[in-house]
Amino acid sequence: MGILSHDDLAGMDEADPLAWARDRFSLPEGVVYLDGNSLGALPTAAPGAVSDAVERAWGRDLIRSWNTNGWIDAPSRLGDRIAPLIGAEAGEVVVADSTSVNLFKLAAGALALRPGRSVILTEPANFPTDLYVLQSVAALHPGRVTLRTVPRSELAHALDEDVALVVLTHVHYKTAERWPMTAITRLAHAKGALTLWDLSHSAGALAIDLNAAGADLAVGCGYKYFNGGPGAPSFVFVAERHQAALESPIWGWMGHAAPFDFVDDHAHAPGIRRQLVGTPSILALAALEAGLATFEGIEMGQVEAKALAMGAALIDLVEERCGEFGLALASPRDGALRGSHVSFAHPEGYAIMQALIARGVIGDFRAPDILRFGLTPLYLRFIDLWDAVEHLREVLATRDYEQDRFRRRQAVT
Amino acid sequence: MGILSHDDLAGMDEADPLAWARDRFSLPEGVVYLDGNSLGALPTAAPGAVSDAVERAWGRDLIRSWNTNGWIDAPSRLGDRIAPLIGAEAGEVVVADSTSVNLFKLAAGALALRPGRSVILTEPANFPTDLYVLQSVAALHPGRVTLRTVPRSELAHALDEDVALVVLTHVHYKTAERWPMTAITRLAHAKGALTLWDLSHSAGALAIDLNAAGADLAVGCGYKYFNGGPGAPSFVFVAERHQAALESPIWGWMGHAAPFDFVDDHAHAPGIRRQLVGTPSILALAALEAGLATFEGIEMGQVEAKALAMGAALIDLVEERCGEFGLALASPRDGALRGSHVSFAHPEGYAIMQALIARGVIGDFRAPDILRFGLTPLYLRFIDLWDAVEHLREVLATRDYEQDRFRRRQAVT
Repeated sequence: MGILSHDDLAGMDEADPLAWARDRFSLPEGVVYLDGNSLGALPTAAPGAVSDAVERAWGRDLIRSWNTNGWIDAPSRLGDRIAPLIGAEAGEVVVADSTSVNLFKLAAGALALRPGRSVILTEPANFPTDLYVLQSVAALHPGRVTLRTVPRSELAHALDEDVALVVLTHVHYKTAERWPMTAITRLAHAKGALTLWDLSHSAGALAIDLNAAGADLAVGCGYKYFNGGPGAPSFVFVAERHQAALESPIWGWMGHAAPFDFVDDHAHAPGIRRQLVGTPSILALAALEAGLATFEGIEMGQVEAKALAMGAALIDLVEERCGEFGLALASPRDGALRGSHVSFAHPEGYAIMQALIARGVIGDFRAPDILRFGLTPLYLRFIDLWDAVEHLREVLATRDYEQDRFRRRQAVT
Repeated sequence: MGILSHDDLAGMDEADPLAWARDRFSLPEGVVYLDGNSLGALPTAAPGAVSDAVERAWGRDLIRSWNTNGWIDAPSRLGDRIAPLIGAEAGEVVVADSTSVNLFKLAAGALALRPGRSVILTEPANFPTDLYVLQSVAALHPGRVTLRTVPRSELAHALDEDVALVVLTHVHYKTAERWPMTAITRLAHAKGALTLWDLSHSAGALAIDLNAAGADLAVGCGYKYFNGGPGAPSFVFVAERHQAALESPIWGWMGHAAPFDFVDDHAHAPGIRRQLVGTPSILALAALEAGLATFEGIEMGQVEAKALAMGAALIDLVEERCGEFGLALASPRDGALRGSHVSFAHPEGYAIMQALIARGVIGDFRAPDILRFGLTPLYLRFIDLWDAVEHLREVLATRDYEQDRFRRRQAVT
């Protein structure tokens, strides 16, 4: 393959079977948005859906909306919409709480399924909140449960019969390295351990098939590739075979078998709804429902194919057009090992990203030196990558990032 | 005092120093809304505030809004808005998660402040989710921590030196009975126990003074009297003196001392922010902020005075005008012992409430026989009580509730 030209990229857009999906989003003028892996763009339908929830359902129908406008079923209804996007069945997914709280619930609950085992296994430099949550789960059992963190290359070796639970982020938030879900799950099962996958950086971008992989448990994010709005509620997956045994450590009225009986004693709801705790934000769920609707009629295999093609194109463009400026690829070159973002390291990464953002090319910076570019197949065009890399080349060539070097750090997941 | 007339009630409205606040709400035509203790009405400013968060902050400014539109500070900013409404200082309140999850965090965390003590004390028939959450906190320490539930009249006797934590709902969700917060707190402290108050049915309705009462911990609801929208996030209060010692059992990135450093090891944030866990819904917070703004310039002493005056008027009207139909007052007659709703028992309570709702008088039913009427001082008029009781009298006199007896149960907190 020769050097990529603007025409090549325009041709890829013409051939893109997902190109039409861009109309499902409201994107600001003059922006190339390469941070949909941190906060998905606004679906065109979201303002209307949220206004309807606010003005009609809340304002006019008031408390009656719990029954008449489907509020009470929203956590399950949205879970069932997510299920086919991650290879789960209806009834295996529910939307609730934040990703961190959901990780806590599943990890703490899973330990009881493997009594006598004392180790939660993960990798260092996993997404920080995952590490913190797992540290807190271990702290619930002082002296009895430990969190074992081992580098990726040593995971198989460290997966012994003390391990109750392996908790991994499917796609690494910084490098985009992708764990082979099926192979790791098999390895864990061979040792009698369970797997808990954090899909925050892969759900909505890759063709995940939890059940084909034999996965046990998973959580994921509503506000990244699912376009559910800032801080959107998270989702929980529990494979059907574990649902009767897995208890949440936090018992609330929404997870009760008979929530409207108002009895004094807790009884776990059957099925996935026992993972619910308190009343969820209905407005947040309305926005997330509009986000999930952007996947209507979309085939996740095509999404993953476009994600990896965009990643390959971005890597080629950066290496071809910015090769002399010291950017080092910090993500796997092989698409099969990569998620839907691409990272480059540069000692002046922070200032370079600030200069890019000032030009309307919005990616993000991750300490100490990572420029991260999220590639969202539903609304990004291949020619956007051309424009982004042109700006990057100009920023690097003119060194116009130097003035930004001391600006306040911009950093949010 | 003679029998209350329509003119008497109109006169109370004329003399009401809070009458002007009704304009801060969008109320549907033809409805008398007596369920603001379950879901507060829509603030006039909420649709615009939420649209702005959706279209400008999310849609146009995208990820940049974490810094430029104040998203990152929203949990503290809203906490500081709530603080003066409940007698707390700035820095003692933060908004996060659901009430149930917050109860879990505080109750589980508080046990560590009273090592060697084994009992959480509460009352039976407390709000169910509170009981379930406390049962789950006890279940974290099998054989070591028990939940002791004793009737209200026996609480003082049961409060012994085994008790680590007394958890009570300030105003009972069904009967509106109000605990004397200062007296109970003193009693608890005399025995070395801590107090955790659930303010869900009193915050925004009564003149609560947590610090004057010496309260240790509290949680409360954003979607009842604070008008934050369906499922609005909850708030957490931790008295300043406990903040350095109280650890949340769920460690997430938002509660980290340096959330943007992305380090592997958890370190609790100083102050109240260590009670945060994951990323909150920004759209839900935007609606709650509009809800809290309905209290701008409002003096909580006037709110409580109006709440109790409305309660007294409703009791008088029902007893004077519906006396022959077998309604029994199920709330304290003495305003000093009551919150901001009034309940009546009737064997046909469910069907009667359905008939009332069909006429646009929206209260709610609580099993087995309770008609519950919430009185929200910011947007309810005294003449609304007249209209509600007229409908109630007609429903009872004509027995037009009998057709509704078999309708599906309407029941949501």
